Amino acid sequence: MRMLDIIHTKREGGQLSPEQLQFFVDGVVDGSIPEYQTSALLMAIFNNGMTDEEQTELTMLMMKSGTHLDLAKIPGIKVDKHSTGGVGDKVSLPLAAMVAAVGIPVPMISGRGLGHTGGTLDKLEAIPGYRVELSESEFINQVATEGLAIVGATGEVAPADKKIYALRDVTDTVDSIPLIASSIMSKKIASGTDALVIDVKTGAGAFMKRLEDSEALAKALVKIGQQAGLQCEAIISDMNQPLGRKIGNALEIEETIDCLKGHGPADLMEVVYTLGSHMVVFGRKASDLATARQLLEQTIADGSALAKFKAMVVAQGGDGRVIDDYKVMPQAKYQIDYPASKAGVITQMLADEIGMASMVLGGGRAKASDQLDYSVGIELNKKLGDSVQAGETILTIYANREDVSDAIKLLDQSIQIGEHAEVPPLVYEVIK
Amino acid sequence: MRMLDIIHTKREGGQLSPEQLQFFVDGVVDGSIPEYQTSALLMAIFNNGMTDEEQTELTMLMMKSGTHLDLAKIPGIKVDKHSTGGVGDKVSLPLAAMVAAVGIPVPMISGRGLGHTGGTLDKLEAIPGYRVELSESEFINQVATEGLAIVGATGEVAPADKKIYALRDVTDTVDSIPLIASSIMSKKIASGTDALVIDVKTGAGAFMKRLEDSEALAKALVKIGQQAGLQCEAIISDMNQPLGRKIGNALEIEETIDCLKGHGPADLMEVVYTLGSHMVVFGRKASDLATARQLLEQTIADGSALAKFKAMVVAQGGDGRVIDDYKVMPQAKYQIDYPASKAGVITQMLADEIGMASMVLGGGRAKASDQLDYSVGIELNKKLGDSVQAGETILTIYANREDVSDAIKLLDQSIQIGEHAEVPPLVYEVIK
Repeated sequence: MRMLDIIHTKREGGQLSPEQLQFFVDGVVDGSIPEYQTSALLMAIFNNGMTDEEQTELTMLMMKSGTHLDLAKIPGIKVDKHSTGGVGDKVSLPLAAMVAAVGIPVPMISGRGLGHTGGTLDKLEAIPGYRVELSESEFINQVATEGLAIVGATGEVAPADKKIYALRDVTDTVDSIPLIASSIMSKKIASGTDALVIDVKTGAGAFMKRLEDSEALAKALVKIGQQAGLQCEAIISDMNQPLGRKIGNALEIEETIDCLKGHGPADLMEVVYTLGSHMVVFGRKASDLATARQLLEQTIADGSALAKFKAMVVAQGGDGRVIDDYKVMPQAKYQIDYPASKAGVITQMLADEIGMASMVLGGGRAKASDQLDYSVGIELNKKLGDSVQAGETILTIYANREDVSDAIKLLDQSIQIGEHAEVPPLVYEVIK
Repeated sequence: MRMLDIIHTKREGGQLSPEQLQFFVDGVVDGSIPEYQTSALLMAIFNNGMTDEEQTELTMLMMKSGTHLDLAKIPGIKVDKHSTGGVGDKVSLPLAAMVAAVGIPVPMISGRGLGHTGGTLDKLEAIPGYRVELSESEFINQVATEGLAIVGATGEVAPADKKIYALRDVTDTVDSIPLIASSIMSKKIASGTDALVIDVKTGAGAFMKRLEDSEALAKALVKIGQQAGLQCEAIISDMNQPLGRKIGNALEIEETIDCLKGHGPADLMEVVYTLGSHMVVFGRKASDLATARQLLEQTIADGSALAKFKAMVVAQGGDGRVIDDYKVMPQAKYQIDYPASKAGVITQMLADEIGMASMVLGGGRAKASDQLDYSVGIELNKKLGDSVQAGETILTIYANREDVSDAIKLLDQSIQIGEHAEVPPLVYEVIK
């Protein structure tokens, strides 16, 4: 078999056989296929796409290139959740606790943030002592005993994907649906979960800006998951404006705990309940979504979700006092209000620019090696469609420097005040 | 400027600016652009093509990346010819001599053969002593004094093309019209000629198998040539069956000299006259093609073309006795007749398989480093449409080994005998 023929097949719009994909993935991992051939194939895939069979096969081969967790020791149907990433998207945190409180094991393997989007692991590390790196046995034991764990990858997950992703990043082949879908799912399937609910974000702050692209990605993800033997569904939710009211690592932990105490913002809770209902049905704790939602609401009302969250934090070495005292987390020196320039209605609040503003304050990473300042971020006082008076505070900047003109410049680009706002739906659709 | 943005522009079907192409070509030459990015761009070009402006700009930039001959010292309008390559295609050899005999300087820079196609330089090296490597001043002086020279590239011609071609070869991006056209023309324009006639072959033995592809390539080549300030035209000629009757290096020199003595095969002479007429008009020695053809016929009748060829051979160190005694060239030990399996008409004589047969006998190269046996090859006794009796010789194999079963296997695949043959036209069209 020759890589040249594999490139040719895809270049001409043909379907790669399982043997060809195996040859490719093996060659990427062992280095026998030069990068210039891999990148030519990636561009041909970008152009000509992949069939359902191809993308599932590629996913499984990338998954098998690395470690694969065996969660059989944990009783019950394990359910995980994945998000394509957004601004203010701390959904995983309250969600994992609530679903675990219903009695479903949640073995969640999460990632870090880059660019304008935050990462679940970064947020958890705002809690002093929280360890995201557990060994495989620690991870499994914690899910078995506490019902949940949120950690970084254990072992070397999907090294083929890692190499391919690095090349995609420098050859403008990132935004190819089959390549995105196989990359996400190879890592998720390796985590050993039985069921997976995916939150595909759409809009200005999302990886996929257009609804049709988000739909195509959601369908590809669900198809792969189901063909790999998982229970799998996706929702498409809005990321034109940030989700919830707080952006920044410690700030998002605060909002998470607020949610679990019953004080969560409506938009955030709606996404949590939507995703959670599907997870609870997957986990066989309810036979329909309405019942599932009631069970989840109950975990807030009775404090069991909050207790689960605290138990997880403590089990992973974190300071449990955070539940009652947010000040155990790093605090920003300055709170700077961002006022409305005129009276009207918020007609635009672009999530990506707000995410970038939080990033330049130190809350996110421009490149993977950047250090984070957990204390900084942005708290929204207004959201899309809200009325404001001239000079009224739209949001508050949490910073460790007085001059935040760089962040303000981004906020100025993000926010517009006008007469009439079109507020996009929060959840567009469910892809089964 | 970033290579990533250049890839993105082309990936999305956009037009690269002269500045972007300059950045790309410079980066290829100095090695600052990694091969994986170049190959991603090449695949994007394969998919989305290039505008006329882009391919001309790329051609000129690749040309300028290397040495550029200045032929101003040679008086008159210099006219060159290029062929996309075929089997039995020795057109350049009699043509150069005939056009030079009309009084037009022919500074011809040729190449070597690979695969089933032969190369003009290889054929000339069948003549003992012939030097294809002249210095730039030797080359210019010879064209000025003798009226013609056929040599390999002097200096480093279009190093950008050399690097890009090497990558195209291993990333399945060879057969892209703008990439082929810019590669050919960057080298031809670097040779300093004033006018260029191109023979684009089409059919089984050609690089372009389909007429529409050959047309597209011819148009691209002519467009680039004209935009670069050359007089430039192309013809599209048939390469379904070999051209002329002899295939192999020494054998093709024999047929060349036969042509110049007035005994050339009709098909070969027709292509020579067609191309030559355009060259003579370009060189201002005739105002129309019919007059030009008469001038060329005169160079055969009066022996002046033969004298020009001999003068060139001698000037480049070759044994001039070859004109009268073909046996000064290497001779094959064995002549093995290939008989017709049945009576009928030759309905198929695929040029590529016959070229491969000559190659396996040692007359061609499977890879660039292979050594050639100048003596071997194939002489056709019959061509497409000719009647044969059962057992009659279709062709004769010239070999240096008795067992030529490998060549015969290829010939069996090439040749079919049936009842009615469709003989394709010899010259399909002229692209101006």
